[in-house]
Amino acid sequence: MSLALNKKELTAYLQEIFPEVIREFAIETLDVGGITMRLLVENRHLRPGGTVSGPSMFMLADVAVYAMVLSRLGREALAVTTSSSMDFLRKPAAAQDIIARGTLLKLGRSLVVGDVLMFSHGSDKPVARATMTYSIPPVNPPVNPPVKPTP
Amino acid sequence: MSLALNKKELTAYLQEIFPEVIREFAIETLDVGGITMRLLVENRHLRPGGTVSGPSMFMLADVAVYAMVLSRLGREALAVTTSSSMDFLRKPAAAQDIIARGTLLKLGRSLVVGDVLMFSHGSDKPVARATMTYSIPPVNPPVNPPVKPTP
Amino acid sequence: MSLALNKKELTAYLQEIFPEVIREFAIETLDVGGITMRLLVENRHLRPGGTVSGPSMFMLADVAVYAMVLSRLGREALAVTTSSSMDFLRKPAAAQDIIARGTLLKLGRSLVVGDVLMFSHGSDKPVARATMTYSIPPVNPPVNPPVKPTP
Amino acid sequence: MSLALNKKELTAYLQEIFPEVIREFAIETLDVGGITMRLLVENRHLRPGGTVSGPSMFMLADVAVYAMVLSRLGREALAVTTSSSMDFLRKPAAAQDIIARGTLLKLGRSLVVGDVLMFSHGSDKPVARATMTYSIPPVNPPVNPPVKPTP
Repeated sequence: MSLALNKKELTAYLQEIFPEVIREFAIETLDVGGITMRLLVENRHLRPGGTVSGPSMFMLADVAVYAMVLSRLGREALAVTTSSSMDFLRKPAAAQDIIARGTLLKLGRSLVVGDVLMFSHGSDKPVARATMTYSIPPVNPPVNPPVKPTP
Repeated sequence: MSLALNKKELTAYLQEIFPEVIREFAIETLDVGGITMRLLVENRHLRPGGTVSGPSMFMLADVAVYAMVLSRLGREALAVTTSSSMDFLRKPAAAQDIIARGTLLKLGRSLVVGDVLMFSHGSDKPVARATMTYSIPPVNPPVNPPVKPTP
Repeated sequence: MSLALNKKELTAYLQEIFPEVIREFAIETLDVGGITMRLLVENRHLRPGGTVSGPSMFMLADVAVYAMVLSRLGREALAVTTSSSMDFLRKPAAAQDIIARGTLLKLGRSLVVGDVLMFSHGSDKPVARATMTYSIPPVNPPVNPPVKPTP
Repeated sequence: MSLALNKKELTAYLQEIFPEVIREFAIETLDVGGITMRLLVENRHLRPGGTVSGPSMFMLADVAVYAMVLSRLGREALAVTTSSSMDFLRKPAAAQDIIARGTLLKLGRSLVVGDVLMFSHGSDKPVARATMTYSIPPVNPPVNPPVKPTP
């Protein structure tokens, strides 16, 4: 088993398709075993008291699993999030980056399930856990195939 | 059963404690049966194609349940999100506000469970479903109780 | 929109395919809006103290959503549970049947999402909430399409 | 950090409190890092085709996390399941035992979160993943402390 996109190719592709979103993230490591992704924490991710917000960690988990799907299936991959479950385990350290370690539990023809454990940078106690499920839409033959105009 | 904070009081209180966040939301209705909350969709909530992002809907569900907790328990309420499960059911309509209808399934001493169904404005087909669990931290008696000075 | 199988047909079909399991359940009502299904509580469903066990409520929610899928798609429907989330809200009443009220939030080509609220018989406070997701396996075009005999 | 109950003590205690349930399970390993628990698959756990049923895997995950809670907190521990999320990843091998590997992500004063990965015996591809949350009820001082009868 190998990667369709390596770390450099994937980073470039994400910058191409999600320029606004992806500048908040950095891929630290990527291989067939999984991904390590960092949320570059800024003020917009924080709640009063300096704690990283739940929606920011949701986005990190979502992006980490989407990145793994692309790394395995390539640029053409279509994938939409269909469900997620998250547990918030501890208060993240104030204003620290969040490090996500993601693995794929299943990479099926129509469903992908990824697991993500998140840590405040510098700590080994998880702050959150997430499972994200992506659906890969079936590729349909066009019902009315495009007709080439006759000259 | 009655509300500790009505719609007007709750809106004012949320503006006081979360001024940055709450300007993206509007409480439409609030009573003991539940809440209707609107996500005022702006560019920052959108993905390419105009669809509302998953993290934005997560935030809407989280804020809707938190608002219900405050409306029932009052300003002093401490509550932290401990878990969430979400299902993304349909692609939201492009650039439309999202309307959340939230109810509390349980308002216990230590746990609150809220259910939220979300719709694109103007549609009656749900785009997402969420359950958010909040923990109410136990109120501890002080370990060293304050000693009344003897006169 | 109409049902492929009505209550009587669905009950007969479930007895045919799951005779062991289905005798623990009764369909009370069934229409396009949803299902009401009863778990006929016996000793095997109980924990010490007479409370209905978590796995029994999981099974009730799973069967209720599966029954709705069959009622809409008919006997040929293939559907496998791919995920579930449950919240246990209150202790069920001792040795009372559990009544499940299920609705389908989404009936897509490849994914079905059903929501189930469960009550102890005679009470209107929910004891549990469940969301069950079923995957409908893709129907593959035959690898060697049938060849029309030439006359 | 150490265990309040080791494997032998825990097995004996579970047999004492859940004699009916626990004979379907065996603790293979137990330490502060987690538990390995086996579901001793019998006919009652199977669906047509020999596959292990969803409710049986739910029960395995629930028992595995409960056993970890007891092993850490001791016999007096009170803990009730408050939520679960599960993903069913692959069809289990026909009539094979299911092996669960459980770890505690959080062991707090009022909430415990455990993660469980399940495999068909002899395979290293997970068949299911579960997160179970347990609530530890607050210990209240008795409102009216028991009065010692005066002799």
